[in-house]
Amino acid sequence: MSLTVVGSIALDTVETPWGRNEEGLGGAATFFSLAAANYTQVHLVGVVGEDFPVEHIALLREKGIDLAGLETAPGRTFRWSGRYHRDVNHRDTLDTQLNVFAAFHPKLPKEARTAKYLFLGNIHPALQLEVLEQAQASFVALDTMNLWIHTTRDDLAKVLSRVDCLIINDSEVRDLTGENNVIRGADAIRALGPRIVVIKKGEHGCLLFHEDGLFAVPAFPLRDVIDPTGAGDTFAGGFMGCIAQRDDMSPATLCQAVVHGSVTASFTCEAFGPNRLARIARPDIDGRFDAFRRLVEF
Amino acid sequence: MSLTVVGSIALDTVETPWGRNEEGLGGAATFFSLAAANYTQVHLVGVVGEDFPVEHIALLREKGIDLAGLETAPGRTFRWSGRYHRDVNHRDTLDTQLNVFAAFHPKLPKEARTAKYLFLGNIHPALQLEVLEQAQASFVALDTMNLWIHTTRDDLAKVLSRVDCLIINDSEVRDLTGENNVIRGADAIRALGPRIVVIKKGEHGCLLFHEDGLFAVPAFPLRDVIDPTGAGDTFAGGFMGCIAQRDDMSPATLCQAVVHGSVTASFTCEAFGPNRLARIARPDIDGRFDAFRRLVEF
Repeated sequence: MSLTVVGSIALDTVETPWGRNEEGLGGAATFFSLAAANYTQVHLVGVVGEDFPVEHIALLREKGIDLAGLETAPGRTFRWSGRYHRDVNHRDTLDTQLNVFAAFHPKLPKEARTAKYLFLGNIHPALQLEVLEQAQASFVALDTMNLWIHTTRDDLAKVLSRVDCLIINDSEVRDLTGENNVIRGADAIRALGPRIVVIKKGEHGCLLFHEDGLFAVPAFPLRDVIDPTGAGDTFAGGFMGCIAQRDDMSPATLCQAVVHGSVTASFTCEAFGPNRLARIARPDIDGRFDAFRRLVEF
Repeated sequence: MSLTVVGSIALDTVETPWGRNEEGLGGAATFFSLAAANYTQVHLVGVVGEDFPVEHIALLREKGIDLAGLETAPGRTFRWSGRYHRDVNHRDTLDTQLNVFAAFHPKLPKEARTAKYLFLGNIHPALQLEVLEQAQASFVALDTMNLWIHTTRDDLAKVLSRVDCLIINDSEVRDLTGENNVIRGADAIRALGPRIVVIKKGEHGCLLFHEDGLFAVPAFPLRDVIDPTGAGDTFAGGFMGCIAQRDDMSPATLCQAVVHGSVTASFTCEAFGPNRLARIARPDIDGRFDAFRRLVEF
């Protein structure tokens, strides 16, 4: 079944100890779409400015992503820049320019509206609510961030009460629930609405709280982490793509979807932006899925 | 086969947001022995002062631990005190009093000397070398800490060149090798001697680098972490105990030993000191081993 994603499309400038990537393709919805397109038909809903390079459009189209919901607005594309240190688990945001994203109100074309699966990327909860008003999806997953947890708590609570699944970082669990313990944090999140909670821990892997219990995986270990920007969004794309392709929300599929998300995200870390992600295909993911199984089997 | 451990026996005072444990039984060799005794005959080599409570001796004896190598020296027992915060991954050491431990030189009785398996707990590398001179073990694992990495690097290098396995925290990998990436860090450690490297990541699980590849596990998730003191030593005890019981160092056994270490360590976290660890038996561990399998299966 097809899958709609609403979120940011950006031009990212990233500095790491290993180099610098100037105004590369970025944005949560970009990474999500490129990952999920390995599994199913993706409808991308977002906005870019008139300066958005045509080669990025060509890449998304070449990957089979439906761009009917991609708006081009007068002005400049959303820009983000950040710096990673030797410990790639920590980054500093150097600059954020919302540009055309500041006035963005998602409008879902018919195909995006009627998709059975929907991912609400990390945008203002009021916009996420606007999407929910238009969409007819029967399975909705949500991302959010500390900014919204702290500044738009009421809107976020409304969105949370209407979604099936929250995909969130461990530090955000603490901000959202006040709980340091992830199990108690997941309980608290479920009390707010989502019956499925995925807690991402970066290089430390991921926890899935599903209706029958708990599933835990390490991250796929990498010898070279070049740029982790977008890894969490890639995870969400692989996770949701796998679920949408199988059209199944059973715990068994959810667990395998977590592994698909994890291994797909590992490719993203291996180059700047989506440079590696954009060059892989499903056999690469399946190969790493098998390697992942060998990694954790005992 | 039997297993010798040389290391600290202490009286620990631990403060957490949930309470305070005054001069409780502690020390790396204590946690290690209590864990490993669920698997095999343990020979404990260490020192206590004249003030060491008889009930602690009784507990160790009741668990079947051989105390022929436990010396009682004039003076006070080694004391450590620390404080944990709401995020139990971080602690402050408030006080360390070496007391009888300051003049300790391990003397291995015959049974301890001839044991096939040996664990060198986290003590001065010069003392670890003294143990190696006496021992006839054919499989030796080592623990160390940042203090020795920074202050006794030459002695530590000598010990490392003579052991089969290093069990180490992720932060210590960085201190020892200068590598932030754990895979590169493990490569660097192997170049120093140990052919097997176990990297402990606390609540984020553990990585095992064995001769055939890499094995990764999450930690067993706990709803209530009361006091993680000794969890790493408990892990080492479960890991080495499992290997010694099976008398097998194959990758398959090493992987299962990591899981045994992980689940045994999870009990330690559930109460102050070894209060929970001391009350479990092998069926409790095996039950949690099965739960662990369900946790990670996909």
